[in-house]
Amino acid sequence: MTTSTQASTLHDFLAPASIAIVGASTDPTKRGYKAIVGLLEGGFEGEIYPINPKASEILGLTAYPSLGELPRAADLALMCTPAASIPGLLRECGKVGIKGAVILASGFGETGAEGAKLEAELLAAAQEAKVRVVGPNTSGLFNLHQKLDLLALEGVKPGDIGIISQSGNMLLALALEAQAHGSIGFSTYVGPGNQTDVGFADYLQYLGEEANTRVATFYVEGFKDGRRFLDSAREVALTKPVVVYKSGSTEAGQKAAASHTGSLAGSYAMTADLLRQAGVNLVEQSDEILPVAEGLGLMQQAAGRRVAILSDGGGQATIASDRLSEAGLELAQLSSTTRNALAAILFPQAALANPIDVAGSTDANPELFIQCLQILAADANVDMVFLVGMFGGYALRFAKELTDAELRTADGLAQVAGSIDKPLVVYSLYTPVKPEPLLRLRRAGLPVTGSIEHGVQVLKALADRGAYLARRQGEQLAATVSVDPAVSASFATARAEGRDLYEYEAKNLLRRYGIQVPEERILRSESDIDAAIDTFGETPLAMKVVSKDILHKSDAGGVLLNRVGRDALRAGRDTILANCRAYKAEAEIEGVLVTPMAPKGTEVIIGMSRDPIFGPVLMFGLGGIFVEILKDVAFRALPLSRDDARAMIDQIKARQILHGARGEAAVDKAALMELLLTISAIVDAHPEIAELDLNPVIAYNNGYAVVDARVIVNKESL
Amino acid sequence: MTTSTQASTLHDFLAPASIAIVGASTDPTKRGYKAIVGLLEGGFEGEIYPINPKASEILGLTAYPSLGELPRAADLALMCTPAASIPGLLRECGKVGIKGAVILASGFGETGAEGAKLEAELLAAAQEAKVRVVGPNTSGLFNLHQKLDLLALEGVKPGDIGIISQSGNMLLALALEAQAHGSIGFSTYVGPGNQTDVGFADYLQYLGEEANTRVATFYVEGFKDGRRFLDSAREVALTKPVVVYKSGSTEAGQKAAASHTGSLAGSYAMTADLLRQAGVNLVEQSDEILPVAEGLGLMQQAAGRRVAILSDGGGQATIASDRLSEAGLELAQLSSTTRNALAAILFPQAALANPIDVAGSTDANPELFIQCLQILAADANVDMVFLVGMFGGYALRFAKELTDAELRTADGLAQVAGSIDKPLVVYSLYTPVKPEPLLRLRRAGLPVTGSIEHGVQVLKALADRGAYLARRQGEQLAATVSVDPAVSASFATARAEGRDLYEYEAKNLLRRYGIQVPEERILRSESDIDAAIDTFGETPLAMKVVSKDILHKSDAGGVLLNRVGRDALRAGRDTILANCRAYKAEAEIEGVLVTPMAPKGTEVIIGMSRDPIFGPVLMFGLGGIFVEILKDVAFRALPLSRDDARAMIDQIKARQILHGARGEAAVDKAALMELLLTISAIVDAHPEIAELDLNPVIAYNNGYAVVDARVIVNKESL
Repeated sequence: MTTSTQASTLHDFLAPASIAIVGASTDPTKRGYKAIVGLLEGGFEGEIYPINPKASEILGLTAYPSLGELPRAADLALMCTPAASIPGLLRECGKVGIKGAVILASGFGETGAEGAKLEAELLAAAQEAKVRVVGPNTSGLFNLHQKLDLLALEGVKPGDIGIISQSGNMLLALALEAQAHGSIGFSTYVGPGNQTDVGFADYLQYLGEEANTRVATFYVEGFKDGRRFLDSAREVALTKPVVVYKSGSTEAGQKAAASHTGSLAGSYAMTADLLRQAGVNLVEQSDEILPVAEGLGLMQQAAGRRVAILSDGGGQATIASDRLSEAGLELAQLSSTTRNALAAILFPQAALANPIDVAGSTDANPELFIQCLQILAADANVDMVFLVGMFGGYALRFAKELTDAELRTADGLAQVAGSIDKPLVVYSLYTPVKPEPLLRLRRAGLPVTGSIEHGVQVLKALADRGAYLARRQGEQLAATVSVDPAVSASFATARAEGRDLYEYEAKNLLRRYGIQVPEERILRSESDIDAAIDTFGETPLAMKVVSKDILHKSDAGGVLLNRVGRDALRAGRDTILANCRAYKAEAEIEGVLVTPMAPKGTEVIIGMSRDPIFGPVLMFGLGGIFVEILKDVAFRALPLSRDDARAMIDQIKARQILHGARGEAAVDKAALMELLLTISAIVDAHPEIAELDLNPVIAYNNGYAVVDARVIVNKESL
Repeated sequence: MTTSTQASTLHDFLAPASIAIVGASTDPTKRGYKAIVGLLEGGFEGEIYPINPKASEILGLTAYPSLGELPRAADLALMCTPAASIPGLLRECGKVGIKGAVILASGFGETGAEGAKLEAELLAAAQEAKVRVVGPNTSGLFNLHQKLDLLALEGVKPGDIGIISQSGNMLLALALEAQAHGSIGFSTYVGPGNQTDVGFADYLQYLGEEANTRVATFYVEGFKDGRRFLDSAREVALTKPVVVYKSGSTEAGQKAAASHTGSLAGSYAMTADLLRQAGVNLVEQSDEILPVAEGLGLMQQAAGRRVAILSDGGGQATIASDRLSEAGLELAQLSSTTRNALAAILFPQAALANPIDVAGSTDANPELFIQCLQILAADANVDMVFLVGMFGGYALRFAKELTDAELRTADGLAQVAGSIDKPLVVYSLYTPVKPEPLLRLRRAGLPVTGSIEHGVQVLKALADRGAYLARRQGEQLAATVSVDPAVSASFATARAEGRDLYEYEAKNLLRRYGIQVPEERILRSESDIDAAIDTFGETPLAMKVVSKDILHKSDAGGVLLNRVGRDALRAGRDTILANCRAYKAEAEIEGVLVTPMAPKGTEVIIGMSRDPIFGPVLMFGLGGIFVEILKDVAFRALPLSRDDARAMIDQIKARQILHGARGEAAVDKAALMELLLTISAIVDAHPEIAELDLNPVIAYNNGYAVVDARVIVNKESL
């Protein structure tokens, strides 16, 4: 795991031994007073140094007139002073060796141009003084294991969920939910504020290293440096679950987020794909954040997606089956050994096909569940077990005498769950009333949810995490290509001429790296027509104008299809030239491209662009309405692994079409995979490429043909 | 509203003044003992008559040896005896005038053929004896306002949610959830069991009439008589919300449901469309059932889908915006009057574009929320208000001194909400800790949810309900058609010959009712070819074999396209005849149909079938992959209203294509609507039609053309 100096720096001040309160106050309504009260009441065990030019003592603590007069450098300075004072104070921090500052003030970039200027000044001062900055405009932070809580929350327990939230209210909501739950606690919280210096990627790296944190959880409105976050996530997710809720899944939400944090949200579908690729457990409903984080913190990942449902009521087993299926999980096919073993201990009316309904067998003897779990865990077809129903409420519902048996059952389930490498998740309808057997399960480290839906999201997260870890084992990245000097030369020419690549140059580029592009000829002179006929004979040909000045060839009348023979070519060329001159008299026309009409097949689209937040991103989709209307596309950050390439093809909803729906042949997915990997390598080798579009690629049963290609050249210096 | 005698009958025994306990027992482990204890402990105020041939007294109550020896007929008999005893006991009930029986025993149809026979016998006995039957195999029932609880639940309050659940565990889960919530209560519950006699439709009608019930709520695994349920829902939903959770949304869930209740689930997508058409508020997540039922019970419907979000924190306002948009609701465009009025009372940094973020304005003065609500309610662009954030926790979070102001705010919000006709829904992150201001809001009748997601589902349900009521106002059903004797004659012929309609007959049928079908000729003899050329001239023609023995015309080589001129027609006919004879030597061939090739347009599909559960159902979708792969179709029960026809066209996900995506012309939706309405009328007029398929219909900018039509004839006696 990469341990950059940045994350180590954060450690100094996110787990500080001493804190200077700049702007400490004797006025109980001020943040500079409340912060000290909060630290004292919270029982912070380090030193607290109030800084106030006028007071000699605040709340019983010796106050100092300035940071320069502290007996020793504090680990952290908490700035409770107005925005304008911050750059100067950061320089003071630098002088006395304070490494980190938390800046509560707002009034920076989020307020307009004036504030943005001040924010730039703040950053320059921080960098010069070598002080790392949390905020500005932060809701604060806490480190509960150190009894450091700048938010003065009540009733929040120390625990193992680390959380970074771009919304203070969201943190508060999660804290209240945890409080009501009773068993969930937090390690570290930071409100990242404007992320002027320290950003999401740094916090993630820090949570990855922090010993008290088992799950790194994020509420994100917008990333500033998404690529670094992806890189951090890829690494941290190898050792700890990373949970992200990303708001702005709709246009309405994106607008709201922009007005809230000034964050650019970007395409949610793309962000979601990239986060998942980087091993993030993406949560899509805000009320699932805490259950999913809790479940991932308690349970190891699952080896697969096959779930056995063990229930004492058919209705809820049915609901669980629906939700599992909708979440992309599977009902495990139980082996006959398993069924026989279950049949031997359950009533004859029990349903033994998954979902299992014990049908009363456990009503008087809940301990049977322990044996059932053992039997299911021994089945190689089962990756996870979901216990669904009334467990925990047997004594309440049936007979008080069952209390002991139920407690023994809880202990037994926990013991078996601890001895197997398959997750067990429990949904009980008695969760809301917190009976002792359920509390005992939770204390033993088993997630107990109060809704079938949340239980299923936990199972899904465990399976997704397992899939990520498996994917990273022996991961094969796209092979690299060595730069072809001829391609470099064509970029140099285009850049010198301030234009993008011509279609034929783009296709040559692809050919030189081994991509299947149908042969072409350019008609510049009469003799080119003869040469084209020599090459293509009586094959029907497509003709397209070649001109840097004509972007929309069809609109200009610059495209003709199905031309056969010399005369048709000649006439076609004349028509295209006449059309294009009529369309744009001053257009410089290089010639007319001819190429055989591609046989029918399945149209796909491949596009690459360099996203300002996430860097180079590849898109794959089916052509036409699938991309334009149904937005049925997959995104991955480059470079691509072989698994990424496979997964993005399999991800599209209309993938059936690739498998040969409607009586047509299945397409050659292996060839498409290689195409995606080669594009990844080309983009890596050629920073000259700003955007690349293969639209369409026609996929066949054997291979494919790139029918149109467009390369936008990076006009900036490389 | 239709008040059938059936529903009245139910009233007698779902709100009984006296109950006979058949199989009453002195053994505390038996249902016949527990039921009496439950009634006594629950405080049932009516008469309880234990029936036991041996005991003279049970639990202090006079016992009777048989139903015949009761001093007067009980309103209800609770049968605690085994399955085999039931038919005889029902006959006894009939003799003494007992009108209703609840049968707990299992061992009927759900166990196999033997049980099914017994169940048939039970039904016959009940009908003969004129006794209505709940169950068998029921989990029981309660009527909490009458202190009648056969389930002996603890901690469940009387309230206004009526619930019918095909799963006893689901009822229990909802009861525990309500208990944890604290303010939610129930009126009547029935476990319908096998629905041998009384079924979902009857219970719905009963709940519609029952004064204590404000919301009729159903957990359904499978309908037996879906058409009757739709009819009941249409009526009941005019006066009370009807909430349904239907399990089996996936194949996995359908299998599970089948093994649980033996219910045939049918297509979920179709069931969902039909329920919504009938005014049902369909809930799709089990943990949303109770919040949605509660919200619909507390609030009147909304006049539209435009929501104003009033929040004190940007993050949660963003999440709320995302969820609203995903749920098909809109963020209201606030008028400038509204923005100015808000600006006048809120801090300058408040965000006034919807979602509204008060940005601290209410921190010290929560009562501002009252004014905000008044301002928003006065905006004609606002249909509902969603208050999102920390309200209820201001005193806890900021300062104890705010307690009174917060309580006044709660009172003020409730007062304003009660005086406007726009729903107010509250999400507070303090919901889990139940602070007094939130309890006060709830007592005043405002729904307060603990999750943004649930709040949005309540808003959606209120908007859907409003849309249903608006739709039913001045509803225009499809005009009827008078039966055309020529069409009847062609059905008579087909039925006599034991075949379906020929394609040309099906098309003639459509033409006779005014549907646009391109002209056709059948080639039977040489002279028909001349006649066809006279009619169509040099237009390119399609040719198709006409034979009742050839179902798949293309497979048989029975279709040729784009034939022009006399010679091509003659040769085409010969080719088709030769192909078809080769394909099936014994096929009786009626001739060859010729018709002009339809111009290109947008392919749609219209299909009607008579569903065994829901009766005649119409399907509409786009052709090709949209139906086959994406399953992007809409269903409606027939007869159709004009709104139904419009809504089913607008419902498909790829509707953009109909609006003229990708540079093509928009299709003539008005003509398609008329086509759907005419089909509805034809199906109504012709019980001879078992199935009807128009596939494809080519839709144009002006009109459409039915290119292929298939009518499957009902072979049973009509």
